[in-house]
Amino acid sequence: MNNYIEKNRDKFLNELLDLIRIPSVSADSKFKQDMIRAAEFVRDRISEAGADKVEIYQTPGHPIVYGEKIIDPSLPTVLVYGHYDVQPADPYELWDSPPFEPVIKNERIYARGACDDKGQFYMHVKALETMLATDSLTCNIKIMIEGEEEVGSSHLETFVKENRELLKCDTILISDTSMIANDVPSIETGLRGLTYLEVEVVGANRDLHSGVYGGGVANPINVLCEMIASLKDENGHITIPGFYDNVEELTGSQRAALNAAPFDLEEYKKDLSIEDVAGERGYTTIERVSVRPTLDVNGIWGGYIGEGAKTVLPSKANAKISMRLVPNQTDQEICDLFTAHFKSIAPASVKVSVVPHHGGLPYVTPTDSLEYHAAELAMEESFGKKPIPTRGGGSIPIVALFEQELGRKSILMGFGLDIDGLHGPNESYGLFNYFKGIETIPLFFKHYAKLKKGE
Amino acid sequence: MNNYIEKNRDKFLNELLDLIRIPSVSADSKFKQDMIRAAEFVRDRISEAGADKVEIYQTPGHPIVYGEKIIDPSLPTVLVYGHYDVQPADPYELWDSPPFEPVIKNERIYARGACDDKGQFYMHVKALETMLATDSLTCNIKIMIEGEEEVGSSHLETFVKENRELLKCDTILISDTSMIANDVPSIETGLRGLTYLEVEVVGANRDLHSGVYGGGVANPINVLCEMIASLKDENGHITIPGFYDNVEELTGSQRAALNAAPFDLEEYKKDLSIEDVAGERGYTTIERVSVRPTLDVNGIWGGYIGEGAKTVLPSKANAKISMRLVPNQTDQEICDLFTAHFKSIAPASVKVSVVPHHGGLPYVTPTDSLEYHAAELAMEESFGKKPIPTRGGGSIPIVALFEQELGRKSILMGFGLDIDGLHGPNESYGLFNYFKGIETIPLFFKHYAKLKKGE
Repeated sequence: MNNYIEKNRDKFLNELLDLIRIPSVSADSKFKQDMIRAAEFVRDRISEAGADKVEIYQTPGHPIVYGEKIIDPSLPTVLVYGHYDVQPADPYELWDSPPFEPVIKNERIYARGACDDKGQFYMHVKALETMLATDSLTCNIKIMIEGEEEVGSSHLETFVKENRELLKCDTILISDTSMIANDVPSIETGLRGLTYLEVEVVGANRDLHSGVYGGGVANPINVLCEMIASLKDENGHITIPGFYDNVEELTGSQRAALNAAPFDLEEYKKDLSIEDVAGERGYTTIERVSVRPTLDVNGIWGGYIGEGAKTVLPSKANAKISMRLVPNQTDQEICDLFTAHFKSIAPASVKVSVVPHHGGLPYVTPTDSLEYHAAELAMEESFGKKPIPTRGGGSIPIVALFEQELGRKSILMGFGLDIDGLHGPNESYGLFNYFKGIETIPLFFKHYAKLKKGE
Repeated sequence: MNNYIEKNRDKFLNELLDLIRIPSVSADSKFKQDMIRAAEFVRDRISEAGADKVEIYQTPGHPIVYGEKIIDPSLPTVLVYGHYDVQPADPYELWDSPPFEPVIKNERIYARGACDDKGQFYMHVKALETMLATDSLTCNIKIMIEGEEEVGSSHLETFVKENRELLKCDTILISDTSMIANDVPSIETGLRGLTYLEVEVVGANRDLHSGVYGGGVANPINVLCEMIASLKDENGHITIPGFYDNVEELTGSQRAALNAAPFDLEEYKKDLSIEDVAGERGYTTIERVSVRPTLDVNGIWGGYIGEGAKTVLPSKANAKISMRLVPNQTDQEICDLFTAHFKSIAPASVKVSVVPHHGGLPYVTPTDSLEYHAAELAMEESFGKKPIPTRGGGSIPIVALFEQELGRKSILMGFGLDIDGLHGPNESYGLFNYFKGIETIPLFFKHYAKLKKGE
């Protein structure tokens, strides 16, 4: 198999670059046509790889691509999941090269989606091609690539609920997470959930002169800042009543295990050019970014933001706010708690509205399952080192739903690194990681089939 | 004179509309050519009105237009001041018609600059034309129209300092303020000062994934909100140490006089569509917007502000913050206090910078001067009612400088109304006010000359 991968190295890379060139930003409706182009591209490549029944399923949002290769109904079936949509590339001016014109530098691909998740899911398409071309596929495979992961997977949710039979499988394999380092392979065994909302604070019915009205009429920006500031106390605890009620506190030994993973705080600060980390008092950085919930403002705007000065007392101010959730919080519960609290703290001088964007449940996978062992063996074989289990801070909202609707756990065998800069400018993905993924995925199928057979 | 004004009504209006059509936004460098066009337009109209020595004076910023008519060196000289620059028209989408295409509706001109200050200073150009055409000018007149009032008049400051002889005068007349109502004429006897700054809070050296880093690294938006919120206490008092040290507290009778002006709180709230006013505890709305200092965020931005959701932990957040000042605060003192305090409250997890934009001193004019009496008599003659003295909340930074450099007080005989919506979308100016101003200004010259002669 490695021979086939080596021989097709240029082709595998160029196809990925072509996919990356399609600006498939799901959040922004001006990219709707590009989303369709991306779905068609993915459909055609999955088909060429040798899958059957390859189809685009329309949804009220962006389409879902599905294909399968059932070689023997008695063999185990692996459902591969990924997403062809990407985060918006804003702010464009911070990119060193245009986000949708991939550039290869220092053995890394620089472009929006290079890693998340085009680079990672496309490894599966190429792994499938490799296994079929070398006649080494050992399990049935179903592959489903959606276009709404970055906006909450809401239509995939309906699709999964309505297509339980089609998606029936023994386990689910996903590459959309990171490892500790190229020489410290790891597997994420948990994901945080997410609640994402947009808030608006409205004062007067029009923008006002800050001299004529200033001091006498509520300024929605000041009020929004005060409301946001009040959402955390001086210890970094979130003040929304009930917010922590369902948070699972780790035991002392669980915390010790988590903190045993290699982590160099000085290197971490140096990499980010910060003098100090910040966060909830009483927890380490590793804990803060994985097993503790958060509340972050992802965007804020109001008033005059052009060049120079404008002495305006604006009519309104807005913010996008998200919370990362941990077991056993639910996105619906937190969305409701946030909304009720945020409205309750609004002063009478303004009107406040809260619009939920999307959410997802947190997720934890056990490390004693057959599929986890298969992933462990596959990475050990390709990296030469047993991977470390970690808890991830990100969210893949659909994973909890897969468990609920399909009754199956997902394996998060991701090949990214923290330095990939997901969601930010100059996102990148190592060529090493891309080809190592294509090499490792068939090993997962091999070990999984063996373990299922009880060998 | 009124006959001449009546006969030239259409011409007077159309010229103003032509002036308004030039988008002379001083804050934004993309309007630089329009600023030059506006200056040339003003120069040509002042010249046509009959002034001598009409010239454009270049500055390192936007040009100053100056002209004069010295009819008799033994007569008193009035310096008229105004500005041809306007505030940015953003946000354009909130305008009912394009901001630089004036529309007349319900006897009002709708456009950026309709009132502030094109409509108001152009009354002086037309009043000059009227007085010269009807041979009724009773004082010498100097007219100076600048292009940087909305950005702090910094180059006018230098120009005034360097041209004390040119600008020598007995008093200064300015129409850039408001009256209480068309049937309640008033004259502003004070202006607030201004300190305008821009702040930036920087966290990590790049935008981060809010899942991978969220909870462990400072979010500059959250930090900025917390810093801004901390600038006021629960009583609406500004918490910057020393901020109130030089604030002049009014006596009980001064406060009573101020609050005796006609003001209907219910009407005020209804006009703004707000449930409640807001501000510093212990002061009335009239006091809050005139004799008390303020701190308002005029603009804020950070992170993702496009459509949909982006789970980014941004690298930085910015805000434009201004403070209106009252006697005897100085803009330099407050700028220094703000900067030192804002930097001192920044947590170690972020870097903070503060850039001053511009400022101006607060100003108070006595009501027992000859020039104030002249303005009072002029308005009484044209409105049929004696004007009420008020304290304005806005700022005209150059007024304090005129006093300092030219040794003269300014008379703020403005004809605007609060409903004109200065600095906001759909700014407007009443036709009644425009023509009433042209009618009243020559009366000021008449009464001022008489009073100076001791008649």
